[in-house]
Amino acid sequence: MRPDATPNWQEFADFAFRLADASGAVIRPYFRKPFTVTDKAAESDAFDPVTTADHEAERAIRSLIGHAYPAHGILGEEEGATKGSDALTWVIDPIDGTRSFMTGMTSWGTLIALNDGTRPIVGVMDQPVTGERFLGTPEDASLNGAPIRTRPCATLGNAILYSTVPEMFSRPNWKAGFEAVEQTVRMRRFGGDCYAYCLLAMGQIDLVIEAGLKPYDIQALIPIIHGAGGVVTTWTGGPADQGGLVVAAGDKRVHVAALEILKNYAD
Amino acid sequence: MRPDATPNWQEFADFAFRLADASGAVIRPYFRKPFTVTDKAAESDAFDPVTTADHEAERAIRSLIGHAYPAHGILGEEEGATKGSDALTWVIDPIDGTRSFMTGMTSWGTLIALNDGTRPIVGVMDQPVTGERFLGTPEDASLNGAPIRTRPCATLGNAILYSTVPEMFSRPNWKAGFEAVEQTVRMRRFGGDCYAYCLLAMGQIDLVIEAGLKPYDIQALIPIIHGAGGVVTTWTGGPADQGGLVVAAGDKRVHVAALEILKNYAD
Repeated sequence: MRPDATPNWQEFADFAFRLADASGAVIRPYFRKPFTVTDKAAESDAFDPVTTADHEAERAIRSLIGHAYPAHGILGEEEGATKGSDALTWVIDPIDGTRSFMTGMTSWGTLIALNDGTRPIVGVMDQPVTGERFLGTPEDASLNGAPIRTRPCATLGNAILYSTVPEMFSRPNWKAGFEAVEQTVRMRRFGGDCYAYCLLAMGQIDLVIEAGLKPYDIQALIPIIHGAGGVVTTWTGGPADQGGLVVAAGDKRVHVAALEILKNYAD
Repeated sequence: MRPDATPNWQEFADFAFRLADASGAVIRPYFRKPFTVTDKAAESDAFDPVTTADHEAERAIRSLIGHAYPAHGILGEEEGATKGSDALTWVIDPIDGTRSFMTGMTSWGTLIALNDGTRPIVGVMDQPVTGERFLGTPEDASLNGAPIRTRPCATLGNAILYSTVPEMFSRPNWKAGFEAVEQTVRMRRFGGDCYAYCLLAMGQIDLVIEAGLKPYDIQALIPIIHGAGGVVTTWTGGPADQGGLVVAAGDKRVHVAALEILKNYAD
């Protein structure tokens, strides 16, 4: 690719689908089957399982990228960063929501983003068991080819909020910030994983607030949220690309109102 | 049916599938579509939405039962109890997990039980969007016709625990009981709804602890759990048919260990 050219996102969206096809084929046989879990964080209090499926799927994705776009960088959950000679980097998490996967729920997904060096321009969230594939591009967002849009929501008091688990707010300040918003919304549910952001993009819910995210947990979701008309930032309103404290809203008014609270708890 | 005869559960299991077919056909068009929610509990702090889908599905189910088995009783979430001249009563909740349904998640389900006057003898949990249908009978349990079994789990420390939402433990004592078990298990997830009990029956998780359940929230799940080799009781070890404080485990050893804690918090 020529430097400074606008990346041909359609080509990369098609390729991201090929990656999702390959990843899904690797992962599906492991779902709801007995399998070995190694504990990455055995030395700490955290329980962060990595499955064979996760490893094998990341290897399959990396192999395809290496053949098709050897100049591209790769940042993956399991095998870390591989710097490319090009500004373009694939940011991937084969199974985002490992605990959901382990327990047989289907709110996990395969996250694939292409970052152009400044921001993620293409994002795919693929659920290989239910057959749902979300795509975000600089132009729009879709689910299995059909356009999706966030829904209007005027106030926090009308908003439905999702978050994956209460314990992700692992600092007292984060917990206090989440609870301050939680107290103002119409309904709050746990158990979302990456699927919650897609529900937001589909116009099913209004707000997702999370903490402790990694870049590969959020980059694929950013073009999906933006393409559907939503907004996603850190708790202080900055770009969410690097993860950390993240707030996504379907309606800008809800985002502004949530940020007004959360910005006071972002450290 | 002759009084005192052993109910022909196969006939009733087939009929429960007809009810689930009818209910699913009513419910599916409402899923992920804008619809009106009325708030049953507008006068209280609780948020307990009832959807049009829920009402219409219950009416469809009641109509079929009325035609096929006019002597049977019906207990439904939406329209209450209709006493039959027979000891057999259908206990139904067309959309168990209304909040999951409202937010576009698929952990809700249609619950259909047949109670013989002493206990639920047939139970169906139907997920009409994903196409998963769980059946429990006096003989066994199955998912879409394939047998399911709970998995062995020797200790609470190895157990994966599900519960729908933290706020269901609405009394300080219930909350303390749940938290006492939560602190001993390997992993705890929220967001289960009725689907969590089916994950347990499938051998994906080991323990479900809930509070504030109604009879129609649990009766259909009891034959599924029992048929799969699991155990489900109240927190004091009594029959779970009437709901309230419920604990289900895939392995008796986990059930005994959880009960040892929970029995101290059951008031």
